[in-house]
Amino acid sequence: MDLYIERGFDQTTVAQIAQRAGLTERTFFRYFADKREVLFWGSATLQELLVETLEGLPPSLAPIDAVAGALDVIAHGFEERRVFALRRQSVIASNPELQERELIKLESLTVATAQALRSRGASDLVATLSAHAGIAVFKVAFEQWVKDDGQITLAQFITASFTELKSVSAGGS
Amino acid sequence: MDLYIERGFDQTTVAQIAQRAGLTERTFFRYFADKREVLFWGSATLQELLVETLEGLPPSLAPIDAVAGALDVIAHGFEERRVFALRRQSVIASNPELQERELIKLESLTVATAQALRSRGASDLVATLSAHAGIAVFKVAFEQWVKDDGQITLAQFITASFTELKSVSAGGS
Repeated sequence: MDLYIERGFDQTTVAQIAQRAGLTERTFFRYFADKREVLFWGSATLQELLVETLEGLPPSLAPIDAVAGALDVIAHGFEERRVFALRRQSVIASNPELQERELIKLESLTVATAQALRSRGASDLVATLSAHAGIAVFKVAFEQWVKDDGQITLAQFITASFTELKSVSAGGS
Repeated sequence: MDLYIERGFDQTTVAQIAQRAGLTERTFFRYFADKREVLFWGSATLQELLVETLEGLPPSLAPIDAVAGALDVIAHGFEERRVFALRRQSVIASNPELQERELIKLESLTVATAQALRSRGASDLVATLSAHAGIAVFKVAFEQWVKDDGQITLAQFITASFTELKSVSAGGS
């Protein structure tokens, strides 16, 4: 990622990345489908962690509260990687292709979350809506956390956004 | 789109599409950036319509209710294009690249909706969360409408999903 920041994402070649990491290009492509994937290697782990955490929460929790609880658990792991997260975000923000890849990863996270909620017994509609709302909260909270000066934790932003979601969704009724 | 259904999306060339439409390839590329865009030419119109409708609704409506109201207005236009919508959806469902393009268009719709809500006076957080929740409802309702036998209108699915969202977001509290 240092290279993406030094040279810009578009100007960095797979050959350069492989060299910096001490890999051959062939080995690089064994791990990553393309150079965009380098920035998303943590996505699959994040997704597994979210699903496992959801499975471990009490079945009595309402779906949206289970998603909130699981995201809270995951959020704590982000604090010690804040510097990395900020650098990564600055690279993604500068490139539309990377923003698209991020949308796709978030969609995958939403689908996996909905599946985990169905496994917990939620109906298809409830699982899908809860997953979409929950991942939207995560996205919004993450953007706030990245822009902030680091005094407020990601978990705190997530909690605040879920509270806001409840109020927002209630609408005028 | 007939060609996409006859031959499959991957097997259809821009030359074939242009020929069928009575255009030169050069003219084709004046209207569409690539052959994926053919399936999304309605997106910009939909987005404009949603923003205009939002702007025309009473300022006293809560943001999420304004989104619900605007989507309800828009949904009615879909009924007479149901056959087209179903055929289009079947092409998109068969191709991951088209699904990605659809995600990007939905994100653009979300960003435009959030902007319209901010113009109505909503805070950044409320506007973003309401837009995400609202467009998620639209997506979920649209998928239900496409799968259904046509007895229930898209507007009815949207209303039901917003009611469910309120209940889902309230959670166990």
